Amino acid sequence: MNLDAVYQELTGKPQGKIALLVMDGVGDIAVKENNYLTPLEAAKTPNLDALAKDSAQGRMIPVAPGITPGSGPGHLGLFGYDPLEFEVGRGVIEALGLGIELKAGDVAARANFCTLDENGIVTDRRAGRIPTETCEKLCAMLSAKIKKIGDVEVIIQPGKEHRFVVVLRGKGMEGPLTDADPQKVGFPIPQVEPRDAKSAKAKKTAKVIKEFYKLALPIIAKEKPANGFLMRGIAHQPDIPLFEQRYNLKPACIAVYPMYKGLAQLVGMTKIEGPQTIAEQFATYKKLYDEYDFFFIHFKYTDKYGEDGNYAAKVKAIEDFDAALPILMEKRPDVIVVTGDHSTPTPMKGHSWHPQPVLIHSQFSGSDKLDRFTDTGANLGSLGVFPAKDLIRYIQANAGMLEKFGA
Amino acid sequence: MNLDAVYQELTGKPQGKIALLVMDGVGDIAVKENNYLTPLEAAKTPNLDALAKDSAQGRMIPVAPGITPGSGPGHLGLFGYDPLEFEVGRGVIEALGLGIELKAGDVAARANFCTLDENGIVTDRRAGRIPTETCEKLCAMLSAKIKKIGDVEVIIQPGKEHRFVVVLRGKGMEGPLTDADPQKVGFPIPQVEPRDAKSAKAKKTAKVIKEFYKLALPIIAKEKPANGFLMRGIAHQPDIPLFEQRYNLKPACIAVYPMYKGLAQLVGMTKIEGPQTIAEQFATYKKLYDEYDFFFIHFKYTDKYGEDGNYAAKVKAIEDFDAALPILMEKRPDVIVVTGDHSTPTPMKGHSWHPQPVLIHSQFSGSDKLDRFTDTGANLGSLGVFPAKDLIRYIQANAGMLEKFGA
Repeated sequence: MNLDAVYQELTGKPQGKIALLVMDGVGDIAVKENNYLTPLEAAKTPNLDALAKDSAQGRMIPVAPGITPGSGPGHLGLFGYDPLEFEVGRGVIEALGLGIELKAGDVAARANFCTLDENGIVTDRRAGRIPTETCEKLCAMLSAKIKKIGDVEVIIQPGKEHRFVVVLRGKGMEGPLTDADPQKVGFPIPQVEPRDAKSAKAKKTAKVIKEFYKLALPIIAKEKPANGFLMRGIAHQPDIPLFEQRYNLKPACIAVYPMYKGLAQLVGMTKIEGPQTIAEQFATYKKLYDEYDFFFIHFKYTDKYGEDGNYAAKVKAIEDFDAALPILMEKRPDVIVVTGDHSTPTPMKGHSWHPQPVLIHSQFSGSDKLDRFTDTGANLGSLGVFPAKDLIRYIQANAGMLEKFGA
Repeated sequence: MNLDAVYQELTGKPQGKIALLVMDGVGDIAVKENNYLTPLEAAKTPNLDALAKDSAQGRMIPVAPGITPGSGPGHLGLFGYDPLEFEVGRGVIEALGLGIELKAGDVAARANFCTLDENGIVTDRRAGRIPTETCEKLCAMLSAKIKKIGDVEVIIQPGKEHRFVVVLRGKGMEGPLTDADPQKVGFPIPQVEPRDAKSAKAKKTAKVIKEFYKLALPIIAKEKPANGFLMRGIAHQPDIPLFEQRYNLKPACIAVYPMYKGLAQLVGMTKIEGPQTIAEQFATYKKLYDEYDFFFIHFKYTDKYGEDGNYAAKVKAIEDFDAALPILMEKRPDVIVVTGDHSTPTPMKGHSWHPQPVLIHSQFSGSDKLDRFTDTGANLGSLGVFPAKDLIRYIQANAGMLEKFGA
């Protein structure tokens, strides 16, 4: 029997409120240079410590052993969707990151301006990393002249430096396509083609993109150094089962950065706009307490300072998070989960495959008798090392909403 | 999406050298008679201890829960091949163990001399465990008279006591076949049949083996007590994806015993001949440092003394291994893995299903803050208890050769 179907059948009503608190990239590794203390271990976290006493802990594999996830797969896993089954294209992720409200069926591409020589050969794949203002100007030029291609709406949104995103909105479109990017200099821009030659929708999409190139290249042909552009990760927004229907939980997303709002929106969570700090996010939760069952609260700075390799700042970010926690606790959620979407170890200055620690607290979580919530401590927890996609089922169980299986 | 395909797509170039150090059967169980100390726990291992400080640890399930693996499945798992998907026939394993250089398509059978009565009924399945010299003499008699059957070359190689191996080398052959072995005395030798009745290749193979019996039995009919023989595990060498292509790592096998060289050769590793002791094996690694990416170094004696039930000797074997380790460390591999292919607990005098401990050390392994590498200690590690076939992916991740998945 299909496991998702079994869960669906067992799923009843939640017996309380659930808060999923994601410290992005919180997981880390203990290394000599940091005195063998991970940021969670070095941080002073009296409020998390108090929670840990009555919690179950474990560690989660974000995607599969050894695989380092991007933010997309990392969050899909946390939301209970196997990242290997529900793949989200790079273009879709970038579009979400720029705050574009994607609709089902939209095809999104990651693009960047480049430099072409007189024969159309790519001589600089990033056009010398033009300033963001130049990128905005070029995107405005393109947007002004290309609004539609046939029945397909074209949305062009500038990003940082040479980067931008193109979204194609119309009927009967789908990806993935091959890249319009030679990957190295000295070659012309290749034509896009459907990855699945049998897909009529992908064929239409490829035709639209070829037409887009025909219209767009002349518009910027006289610009220097950005007189061309490359497109990659061309795919449609996948059809993902809605969170609310899948888990019988009404979800709200309280995030600050567009990327995470976008990922939550992909599974149908309601995006809450407004709060800018973790304290404000927790206050927003309190305000909306009666309106939703499930609150996904995203904290960015643990990842940011992990990426920077800034150990002290990552420690401080965790302490900031901890210091704000009492605001949440004023209207104590019945199920509290604290974890990351992956690890971002400061010694690695980037995401990694290391299983991130997770803490589940509820009336029924039991206690693993751990004094703190840390990477090494979580190794000793009752949850063991498990795939992140299973977390949602532990959450449902702790919310008293999964019936007994069999007699 | 197929997980192997995902890994393949993420695989880049290794950022350094990898050493997989296999202490065969090193895993053990803590029992009262040994003062609750496993051999790893009782052994003095200053060099492994030093490594453990900066390592991740865990335990590995060789095949599946409760399953005791032979050396074949044990090593296939370590090499990243699911032993349930890539089955290697017992005949193939035995042939490899005897040092026969199998070619793709070769069919190998495990055989042993037996005693038949005047009606062809098996009265002793092992012919009273005849001495090895008698076995060698009988094999020589068979080899002298049977070199080919039709277009199929016949290779007969004696083993220990009553055991030998028959390899059939020709076109259009395959296994598996049913056994020519009644499994108990009082019955005649059954005819072999294809396990897949639709396979023309297996039919041809069955015909060749029936013909082999017709030719061979008369040759030894007057011998005593070995006047017959049984054949089991009749199968062809399976087509296994090459290690180098699968993981983008150029592998060398530095083993002493033919069986392990053979298993490494099955997946396309280069066998290095010469070294006889673990110190010599480590010295060989140093000599070949520039020529390969991945070094599989096999140490037999932990398993041997486990099989003998000799606790003190197994402890000593671990200490010998540890004492030689500094030779390896003179040209420190970037990724060092220490583990076994399975457990061979001395109280059981044989292989077992108990998950073997594993240690992974690299710049990015992080530290699990364990002072030693032991069975019980590994329970506390960040890797948890996981299938052995996943080890290679952690190795690739630690070698910095797996790209990020998704954005």
